Formats: sequence, C-alpha cells, structure tokens
Amino acid sequence: MITVLAGGVGAARYLAGLLQVVPPADVTAVVNTGDDTTMHGLRICPDLDTVTYTLAGAVNGETGWGLTGETWQAMESLRAYDAGRAGFNLGDRELGTPLFRTGRLAEGASLAEVTEQIAARWGLGLRLLPMTEAEVATRVTVADDGEIGFQDYFVGRHHSVAVSAVRFAGIEAATPSAGVLDAIASAAKVVIAPSNPIVSIGPVLAVPGLRAAIAARRDDVVAISPIIAGAALKGPADRLLTELGHESSVVGVARIYAEVAGTLVIDTADADLAGAVEAAGMRCVVAPTIMSGPAEAAALAKVTLS
Amino acid sequence: MITVLAGGVGAARYLAGLLQVVPPADVTAVVNTGDDTTMHGLRICPDLDTVTYTLAGAVNGETGWGLTGETWQAMESLRAYDAGRAGFNLGDRELGTPLFRTGRLAEGASLAEVTEQIAARWGLGLRLLPMTEAEVATRVTVADDGEIGFQDYFVGRHHSVAVSAVRFAGIEAATPSAGVLDAIASAAKVVIAPSNPIVSIGPVLAVPGLRAAIAARRDDVVAISPIIAGAALKGPADRLLTELGHESSVVGVARIYAEVAGTLVIDTADADLAGAVEAAGMRCVVAPTIMSGPAEAAALAKVTLS
Repeated sequence: MITVLAGGVGAARYLAGLLQVVPPADVTAVVNTGDDTTMHGLRICPDLDTVTYTLAGAVNGETGWGLTGETWQAMESLRAYDAGRAGFNLGDRELGTPLFRTGRLAEGASLAEVTEQIAARWGLGLRLLPMTEAEVATRVTVADDGEIGFQDYFVGRHHSVAVSAVRFAGIEAATPSAGVLDAIASAAKVVIAPSNPIVSIGPVLAVPGLRAAIAARRDDVVAISPIIAGAALKGPADRLLTELGHESSVVGVARIYAEVAGTLVIDTADADLAGAVEAAGMRCVVAPTIMSGPAEAAALAKVTLS
Repeated sequence: MITVLAGGVGAARYLAGLLQVVPPADVTAVVNTGDDTTMHGLRICPDLDTVTYTLAGAVNGETGWGLTGETWQAMESLRAYDAGRAGFNLGDRELGTPLFRTGRLAEGASLAEVTEQIAARWGLGLRLLPMTEAEVATRVTVADDGEIGFQDYFVGRHHSVAVSAVRFAGIEAATPSAGVLDAIASAAKVVIAPSNPIVSIGPVLAVPGLRAAIAARRDDVVAISPIIAGAALKGPADRLLTELGHESSVVGVARIYAEVAGTLVIDTADADLAGAVEAAGMRCVVAPTIMSGPAEAAALAKVTLS
C-alpha cells in the first residue's frame, strides 16, 4: 500500500505515473482541501478535481486543470451580470462536479463520500481522501491588500503579488478525515508529491495529528522536490518559499520536510546539492523528476518506491 | 401606474403585452416566489426568471421558459454523477443567473436588489419585485407520496399526479418585500395576471398583509381568468382547481378572486358564463384572452386597463 500526500497538478501527474507501476487498489491519495472555496453557492475543491480529471484522462492538457471539450456559456452569462464575478473560471462541463458535490453535501453526505462517488464516476481505481472534513481556508497576506483568500491570490491575481504570510483558517478544529491516519500508519511508503510545500502540502501537514502521524513513519516517507534548479516548474512555489524566508532550492525544501520525511528525491539538475540536502538531515536520491510524459512519470514513481 | 400580480409563463406574456401599451417605467410586477428552491446549492427563482427572459425577448419560445441558444453540458455532466439528480433542467447559459443570484445573496444582498440587477442586465424597463424576501416554499400533498416540494411535483412528476392539498411553508413569517404595498396602494389598476390561481397567485395573496392591501383596492383590481372553456392553456391549473374542490371554470376562478378583485376578464369562449361570474360577485368583461402573439397580448392589456 502506498499513500501519497497530494496537491494539484504536480501530484496528479505523479499519481498517474504511480498507477502505471502499482495496482490502483494499493494507492491512497490524501488530498489538500485548503484551496477549497464556496463560490456562487457552489463548493469548489480544486485539488481533488485536478487529481480526478488528470487520472481519468479528461484533464485539459493545456492548463493542467479543468476538463477537455469545455464550453463557457455559464461564465459568459455570469459575466454579463457582473464582469468581475467570474474570475474563477468554471467551464460548463466542469460545473457538473460542484453542482453534484454541493447538492450531496446539502443532503448531509460527507466530503469523503462525495469524493468517492466522484472518483467512481470517473472510473478511478485508487482511493482519494480529502485531508479533512472540516472547512479549512488557506489565507494569504499580500503587500497592498492585507489578508485575502487563496483563490483571489492564485487565480484573481495570478499569484503575482508578494506574500508575507500564509495561514490555514479553521485548521485548529480540523481532524484527519476517516481512513487518513490508517492509510499513513499502514502504508509501505508514504510519498509527498512534488506539490507546493507551503500551500499544497502545508495544509495537509497542518491538520492536527497528521504531522505527527507522518513523522512517525519518517523512515518510509519519501518527498519529491517541486523545486528544480531553484525554480518551480509551475505555480508560485519558488517565490512563496523566498518571500516566506525559505531558500528556493532543494535544500530549502529539505529543511521544510526533514522532520517528517527521511528521503528527498531531487532532480539531476540539482545533483551538486545532494550533499547539502544530506546535511539538512535527509537521505538524498538524485533522479530525473520532470514528468514530461507518462514514461517519465512512471520512472519517477519507481524511484520513489525503491 | 399599473401593478401586476404575476406567476410565470402566462404573466410574462401578459406583461409583454402591457409594455406595448404603457410606458415600462409605469409598470410594477409583484412576482410569486413560492416556486423558488435551492438546488445543488443554487437559488432558483422560476417565475422571476421566466418573466425576465420573456420580457427580454430571450425566452425559449418552444418551452416558454429558459433561454434561447442553450447548451446542456453542465446537466449532462451532473447526470453522469447521478442520473436522477438533474430533473430540474438548467441550461448552461441560464446557469449564469442562479450563479449570480446565489453569490449576491451570500454576500448579503436582498432578493429585491439582486432581482433589480438581473432586470437591469436584461434591459427591462419595468420594476420587478419578488413578493417577499422570506423563503416561502409551495408544498403539495400527492396521493402516494405525501407532501413534496413544488418542483418535484411540477417538473419531476410533470404535474400529472393528483393533489389533495397545497400549502406555502414559511408564509406566516413572510412580509411583502419593500415597495410592494406601496405599488398596490398607489396603482391606478392592479391586474391579476392569467396565472395559476392556486400555486402562482395563491402564494402572493397569502403573504400576510397582501390580501388585505389588494382587497382594499378591489374596485381597481382586474383579474384575467387563466381558465378558458374549463381548461388551462398550459400547466395544471384546471386539474388543481378540481382536485382542491373548486370548479375548473371562469365561475370557479371568480369565486376564488371575488374578495380581492372587482372585475374578471374571461375569454369569448366563456361568454355564456358571464352571468354566472357576475352572480359570483365580480363584474365580468368578455374578450379574447388567448395571447397567441404580441398583438393579442397588447389587445388583452388594453382590455384590462379600460
């Protein structure tokens, strides 16, 4: 059994590789829900959906999120009422997911139950678990506007503003969702996917009880650095690390994960930093980590399991 | 100033006729919100939307509700999760309206404010007022299943099951929305549109304070019978009248409205019942009431104003 701590696009690609080399029934993904938000009345779970659509082979290949074959009538109609209101773009086809989720949650279903139903509809073989049932909201303090919601930062401002603080509102009252602690305790390996350490893996580790559960498995926990040659392949991980006082390098990542993970996989481009990673307290594995296609993703998955 | 008590399709067609013969700024429509419902997290107001789309010239001409140029990706996607869940069909284009409404309501806007914004976007010149800000839900008792929601009856069961009772849940706590009492008190004429007397006009008259306010204007209140030759042109008004112990005829309509309206306009097909309508206590006007096109709607509007 393999348990993967997952954010969005990077984690989805890693999981697609993993499912090529491990039976899907042996894989559990514990997915960040700190990006989740209620918009226009609909409950949106960006990371759960990105993982789902990617593993279903239905993700929009150009963006890495959203669905193929999308149309945009609902958002155009919404913009006709208020141009500023459709910043978070949901295609007509994709809208079915939050419509279903919101309806089920209103009926009293748990997010885990709804997530299982969504995964079943897309024929996913692995188990997808939200990190918690609690509503946790990643909040970001930016220079000019104070604290704003994560989607406002990430989508509305294209993550291009400087961040001075990040917090996960509601996290104190959160507990790991059903099955999460067991999936960590019983896994042969726990993998921290190449997701943003601050805003994707950060919320998962911040759920009370989860950090300790993962640290207890430290020797079997393998993290993959999302930073390659100092930069993130996608998204603001590199800037966020620097802005929040970390080093935007595999060494900075090692310092963040050293308490909970025994091993860090870094890209061959960073081979010269292997010694510094080990000095930060992690075993270092050097391997190609850029998942440009299914073969590369499967090869990276094999590295994390070996 | 003309104030119209309005349900959905029949009221929308009457209002379209009225706006041909009266300046739009002189018209207020007080619209039934008893059909409103929250579905998949979205606040749906069927009668407000039908009136809006019809007056904007954007209504789907085949159905009498919904928008032209519609696509159905979101509902297809929702049905892939649960085939039973998309009984209330919302096209992609139309979805923009409840997305906007639900978002604004969550921000604290009143339904009247949101309705005004929606009317402005569609360029409507008249004033559209929801009958109340309170959530009122028309509930229908059917033979086999007990009490069900109105949309379940109307859409889910195609209004084809026998009804033994109708009530408006939440009506006791409702008050007329801002401007409604004034629009009734100050109108030169109050028109009860040719809508379903039980489930469209019924909720409007049941809002505490509204029946008395309308009855106080009885001499200037004109109702149009939605029953022609014993039958409803559209919808279940005829069956509902019979099932609930009324007569499905212009005389049955007269008995329902006699307390609040001084005049009933009946179709020429019912000319022989004019005496019976007068015997029920209403002045009777016989005129063509089938609004098969704009000219017929305008002619009917003129009759109600004369």
